[in-house]
Amino acid sequence: MRRILAIDAGGTSSRAVLFDVNGECRGFGRAGGGNPTAVGIAAAVDALGLAVERALGGTASGSAADSFVVVALAGTATAPFLALLDARLAHLGLHGRSVIEPDLLGTFCSGTSDHHGYAVIAGTGAIAARVVGGHIHTVKGGSGWLLGDTGSGFWIGQQIARAVVASLDGLGPSTALTPLLLTATGIERTGVRSRGRSEELSQLMRELYALRPVELARFAPLAFEAVEHGDIESETTPDVVARDILEVAASAIARVLAAAVESDVKPEVDGCVVLGGSVLAAGLARAPDIFTHRLRAAAGGFELVTVEDGVVGAAVLALRHLGREVDVEFHRRLVREVDRVRTPATQV
Amino acid sequence: MRRILAIDAGGTSSRAVLFDVNGECRGFGRAGGGNPTAVGIAAAVDALGLAVERALGGTASGSAADSFVVVALAGTATAPFLALLDARLAHLGLHGRSVIEPDLLGTFCSGTSDHHGYAVIAGTGAIAARVVGGHIHTVKGGSGWLLGDTGSGFWIGQQIARAVVASLDGLGPSTALTPLLLTATGIERTGVRSRGRSEELSQLMRELYALRPVELARFAPLAFEAVEHGDIESETTPDVVARDILEVAASAIARVLAAAVESDVKPEVDGCVVLGGSVLAAGLARAPDIFTHRLRAAAGGFELVTVEDGVVGAAVLALRHLGREVDVEFHRRLVREVDRVRTPATQV
Repeated sequence: MRRILAIDAGGTSSRAVLFDVNGECRGFGRAGGGNPTAVGIAAAVDALGLAVERALGGTASGSAADSFVVVALAGTATAPFLALLDARLAHLGLHGRSVIEPDLLGTFCSGTSDHHGYAVIAGTGAIAARVVGGHIHTVKGGSGWLLGDTGSGFWIGQQIARAVVASLDGLGPSTALTPLLLTATGIERTGVRSRGRSEELSQLMRELYALRPVELARFAPLAFEAVEHGDIESETTPDVVARDILEVAASAIARVLAAAVESDVKPEVDGCVVLGGSVLAAGLARAPDIFTHRLRAAAGGFELVTVEDGVVGAAVLALRHLGREVDVEFHRRLVREVDRVRTPATQV
Repeated sequence: MRRILAIDAGGTSSRAVLFDVNGECRGFGRAGGGNPTAVGIAAAVDALGLAVERALGGTASGSAADSFVVVALAGTATAPFLALLDARLAHLGLHGRSVIEPDLLGTFCSGTSDHHGYAVIAGTGAIAARVVGGHIHTVKGGSGWLLGDTGSGFWIGQQIARAVVASLDGLGPSTALTPLLLTATGIERTGVRSRGRSEELSQLMRELYALRPVELARFAPLAFEAVEHGDIESETTPDVVARDILEVAASAIARVLAAAVESDVKPEVDGCVVLGGSVLAAGLARAPDIFTHRLRAAAGGFELVTVEDGVVGAAVLALRHLGREVDVEFHRRLVREVDRVRTPATQV
């Protein structure tokens, strides 16, 4: 029997689901970052192979099978990456075609069975697209950590790091982010000074410059923690520095969405706006007063749908490649099925 | 006879001067970036060796001599760098002691014979120091391109690149920086679109991501060009986007200086503020309405002195190491002497 697999290859984590043409799910697997641009080709293929192996469960070993695999992926898939991925899939007994689809389309199809609408992803990066006839028509944002992606996980993490460094250096206001970041990096405040600087500042700079720049994204959750700390009973107020960072982030993400919506010359598109990525998930759940109204305004009346990831959408795209129509009913069943087999994120 | 050399090892260019204990200069040499953190150990030693060779002129070959060399350098000099530098100097016939001094002290001593005061450098990075008793007492800023250095050449270059990318993507206002940056990177505007994006945007992103991040500093001069374009006769106004970037830069540099001045618990320091680095040189000469009043306010009454680089200061530090007192008169003579032998920057 033909094995159909849908993979959502993210910058920090990946998901794979094994299913049949009727949408019945047989297995689910998670692993680390599977985007070759973010983690390198070898590490990406290792992660995707592991996620697939876990989705296959006991059925992997020995038996060769015809397969069809769709991978939802940000950016461009290079020939060396595709060759290594196909070799790894063959090693897992999967002999067949694999197709790369844009992660924006995976996210979009996770949220709707429509062929028209918008998708916004704010995770490690920040990007939006207009979808027309089931294809990406226009892309806005997604210019990467150095040249754009304002509001992304990297950007929030970098703003946190810059704010804490400035505060420790006496160049910026004190902020609740400082103890949070020092704890996250395992640095103790000593008050010792050397070479004209405080020792914890020198130590923090060493720790952070030892990371690859994009890894600053791992500190983004601290901003949400700092704004949640505000509490009327204990008379503490949410951290102003963290709130400023999240307000600029939410505005920038909304601007990218608004640009995609405005690119719609004839406003015939009447689908929804699908929101994906860790920053949007955290923003809508943990700082709704900062994120929700900005996104609503940018969406200009279109319904907002939040998705956990792009794996359902990758499955939808696979089924369409195989000639199956995925209507509202089928889409709903697929979402339920993936939820049934989905393992908790903490199991990675 | 003992050969005394002073070297100013910058991130993008280096200078060396050969002189005697009376301050008489015998030769001057320039070469590329000599900071091992910025360009790598091998390239830095190559550049410093070349600058020294040029300063020595014909006197280099064959003859071994006792020497004393002072190198003014940002950041920490590692043991491998020092070993390679000493080997290169020995190869040039210089057998003797070499001493590393902070670039902030080189800049400070280029501007004054005082032992107390302040120095600010805004070049590739942005940093300020309080000098007490001829030594660096407090350092502010200089946290590097990822975590700080707001207002530095890198920061200005990156803001230019981000503004142009946003403008081409429809996410930011149009700006005179766009044609300037496209010309600087050799990209023609075609109007062609592919993969949901304009072709010149994709091409610009490829060009800029191919650089090392700090190399974005090379585009900083475009901001000064864009604000100078304003002209009453031709009814053009200075570019608002470029002006915003330079205003934030000037404010950030002024804040770093102000923090160094404020760190002075007992305001007994009555020296001057020495300003160095390419951004401050360009700012004070080409955008004085943006830079001058901010720096004056931050300096809190101390006199501002602008220097071309730190090579005179490195010579002052060398003379002091050799037990020579450098008073106001001697300092003035040294400045004149270095100016006499100095070759134009364009000869590099």
